[in-house]
Amino acid sequence: MPVSKIYFEDFKPGVFAEFGPRVVTREEIVAFAAEFDPQPMHLDEVAARSTLLGGLSASGWYACCVLMRMCTDAFVLNSASMGAPGVDEVRWLAPIRPGDELTLTATALDSRVSKSRPDMGFVRFSFELSNQAGAKVVALTTSLMVGRREAGSAA
Amino acid sequence: MPVSKIYFEDFKPGVFAEFGPRVVTREEIVAFAAEFDPQPMHLDEVAARSTLLGGLSASGWYACCVLMRMCTDAFVLNSASMGAPGVDEVRWLAPIRPGDELTLTATALDSRVSKSRPDMGFVRFSFELSNQAGAKVVALTTSLMVGRREAGSAA
Repeated sequence: MPVSKIYFEDFKPGVFAEFGPRVVTREEIVAFAAEFDPQPMHLDEVAARSTLLGGLSASGWYACCVLMRMCTDAFVLNSASMGAPGVDEVRWLAPIRPGDELTLTATALDSRVSKSRPDMGFVRFSFELSNQAGAKVVALTTSLMVGRREAGSAA
Repeated sequence: MPVSKIYFEDFKPGVFAEFGPRVVTREEIVAFAAEFDPQPMHLDEVAARSTLLGGLSASGWYACCVLMRMCTDAFVLNSASMGAPGVDEVRWLAPIRPGDELTLTATALDSRVSKSRPDMGFVRFSFELSNQAGAKVVALTTSLMVGRREAGSAA
């Protein structure tokens, strides 16, 4: 294991990091929508104008997927992450348009050692995607299961 | 508009419907993971065996995307849905394996007319995906914004 691998103990509450940007293209937005969320506002510029989003915008699920990929590249693959039991909340705050450059901010909110599995703990994170204008477009809260550096040690 | 189009008023609390099944293939699981969630348990059978999931399993985000696509085909495109402001909660309850056949159940929990936009309302849904053995694999709660049949009428 690389010495830089990140364990449960390293995600101290308040620890914050920023990653990106990642550009979202029109082709990606439309291809994702065609496969998973074929609604007019995610597929067609003209049809999208008369929707609440006021123009072609990425599916909210695409935003979640981009966020996941940015997290994976940023720290998950270099950590003792064991996955997640779910997602506490997702807020789609503003449309993601073709060409937008998204920046990910990750903040550890709190953490606790698992009672049933003392070799791991839960770290609750706030993840946010912001666009090139600084507007928050997605806010997501979830807990990751992360292995402890000294697995099985007392809490 | 087709007469069968579904409006806010049609989603009465307790109304329940079942859709599917949809088969999830190994190729889809791996292709999605390679693009959005490249962790070993979603990419490689051998590496996956030593993870919490105990074998190759779909990304939880893939499960959400499949659920969205099943909802879109089942009723969203035939409704006055205007999108969603986010997701209240997602629980990944059991692994999704290659070859699993997923069935979607959709239940309207409650609804309310929007105060700021009386031409629409919020319908809160429970969506669940179950596999061919009847085990629940995903539970998701979210509110959709849906146009009212008599837009702008008194609540």
